[in-house]
Amino acid sequence: MMTELRKDPVTNRWVIISAGRAKRPSDFSSKPPPRPSGVCPFCPGNEETTPPEVMAYRNDGEPPNTPGWHVRVVANKFPALMGTGDLSRQSEGIYDKMQGVGVHEVIIESPHHDQTLGTMPPQQVEKVLSAFRERILDLKQDPRLQYVLIFKNHGEAAGASLEHPHSQLIATPIIPKRVREEAEGARQYYDAKRRCVYCDIIREELTQTKRVISMNDHFVAMAPFASRFPFETWIVPRTHYAAFEETPTEKYASLARMVQETFQRIERVLSDPPYNVVIHNAPFGEDDRLHYHWRLEITPRLIRLAGFEWGTGFYINPTPPEEAAQHLRDAGASESRPASDPADETSKG
Amino acid sequence: MMTELRKDPVTNRWVIISAGRAKRPSDFSSKPPPRPSGVCPFCPGNEETTPPEVMAYRNDGEPPNTPGWHVRVVANKFPALMGTGDLSRQSEGIYDKMQGVGVHEVIIESPHHDQTLGTMPPQQVEKVLSAFRERILDLKQDPRLQYVLIFKNHGEAAGASLEHPHSQLIATPIIPKRVREEAEGARQYYDAKRRCVYCDIIREELTQTKRVISMNDHFVAMAPFASRFPFETWIVPRTHYAAFEETPTEKYASLARMVQETFQRIERVLSDPPYNVVIHNAPFGEDDRLHYHWRLEITPRLIRLAGFEWGTGFYINPTPPEEAAQHLRDAGASESRPASDPADETSKG
Repeated sequence: MMTELRKDPVTNRWVIISAGRAKRPSDFSSKPPPRPSGVCPFCPGNEETTPPEVMAYRNDGEPPNTPGWHVRVVANKFPALMGTGDLSRQSEGIYDKMQGVGVHEVIIESPHHDQTLGTMPPQQVEKVLSAFRERILDLKQDPRLQYVLIFKNHGEAAGASLEHPHSQLIATPIIPKRVREEAEGARQYYDAKRRCVYCDIIREELTQTKRVISMNDHFVAMAPFASRFPFETWIVPRTHYAAFEETPTEKYASLARMVQETFQRIERVLSDPPYNVVIHNAPFGEDDRLHYHWRLEITPRLIRLAGFEWGTGFYINPTPPEEAAQHLRDAGASESRPASDPADETSKG
Repeated sequence: MMTELRKDPVTNRWVIISAGRAKRPSDFSSKPPPRPSGVCPFCPGNEETTPPEVMAYRNDGEPPNTPGWHVRVVANKFPALMGTGDLSRQSEGIYDKMQGVGVHEVIIESPHHDQTLGTMPPQQVEKVLSAFRERILDLKQDPRLQYVLIFKNHGEAAGASLEHPHSQLIATPIIPKRVREEAEGARQYYDAKRRCVYCDIIREELTQTKRVISMNDHFVAMAPFASRFPFETWIVPRTHYAAFEETPTEKYASLARMVQETFQRIERVLSDPPYNVVIHNAPFGEDDRLHYHWRLEITPRLIRLAGFEWGTGFYINPTPPEEAAQHLRDAGASESRPASDPADETSKG
């Protein structure tokens, strides 16, 4: 059965209605779903339980869909969008809809079931980032697609249904509303000041320093000034690149180290919390090159959103980002623990 | 300690940073918080455990802050915003912030600990709605405030921390971003067509009928065409009123019946699910009178949002609204079970 994209006539927000796997009332349990016991479909040896691989990094000479891979990308077995059909819009009375064309893939980040982005070696994180890049560059060539979202749900409270470390990719035929909103905000800033707002934010943060978690030659990890969530963390390139896939590959090792180290800090300070990761990336095309600036955003799921946030988009954050950054700075990381004042450490308890 | 409103420099979204009750890493447990055992602060007899009442409906002659009330409104003991201070904006480098001026109140909906909007008598629901109205009309007179959000979190998964039936009210010194966005979308539609988009939606739904759950002379309950969540439900006035508090009080009995009946349906079909309720209301002032149209929105919390929704604002809904409406229609309601085809009932299992 087809999925359908439907447009809200007031806000112009698109919604994916997946009629193919329609859930009836009895499908919604107030209890968490039982853990799929036994076989993990993402573990080596179980390659036949997933759709065939789209790509994989594996030892030379090994055939596809067999063990021996380091990173493996497969189609999502239960896709929210599918890569077939055309994009013609249809009306239904006053409403607009279109077929749910798109791509939904899973990036299996490691053959090891229990690794996380904080515990795997930086070299492995770099392979994951390279796989992201390859998939984006490939999907960019499909003229029906306008955006690729790379994201990760870790832990049940963040929406993950499988434990094995994996990210996901959804490519959509429209630019999602929040992405367009961010690109539009950045454009307005650029039009007024002829500067990238994110470049200005980085300069400001490196001056104020109190929200900086760590930095290296190419990237900075920071808690944003208007953090919506406790311990919200951004990893941003210090040089202006609109898109993740445009960042020169020689900087990926540096990015991988920072990603690994940042997750290590978060896992330490918050005891392996549930979290979501989203790569905020420029839409395809040339329009947003000067004013958009990609970032990797990590949002630990420590508090539940409630009616107020839903109704207003106005978030209440009980942990000031300055304090969150301080905790994450103090946590250090195995490779590059920064100098910190022991007295201050004590006073933090 | 003060709370602070901070503005995101890219999207212009405001965030409430409540520094006063700053949460440190150890405050976030991966387990749900222990239930406050014993005394419910909202039950009659425990009036002294809440801040003093702002208003109450009670039997004549009974003193405030004693039992005998039907509906009771008190300040939130742990407010996200407080009604003191001025609104001057300050800068912090390139950023904008202001003091967290505002009001945060709790509407205790019933003296009975175990009632819900679906099980309390419609007369009691009407008292709750009247209390909403009185509070909005009162807060509208504070020139520092621009919006009042009325919302309800029911069940732990929806963010409720207490079981006793209650709603909340937060009044803010700015118009929240999602509210402004909706008002703006409605204005653009009005400018193009000289018609209220919500009035058009109601006309369309009453024609198509497949997403209508129930209706009476003054209100309609429906599943919106681009529902973001399974069983998302709107209750909308059939006549154009921009704001909840402008709806003539003689229609409140009719609204109360529909609210009570709709929650009864939802509780039956989904076995008392967690849900959020938000009254989408026009901002204060005269700007949005013609094109905004208030509604009460119910979103059962049946699925977890994950990274994709966070990153894009692009929702995946596994239950088509037509099917959700069918289930809710078929569930009937004690007072006004609509005629339904028994054959159809059987085929739905």
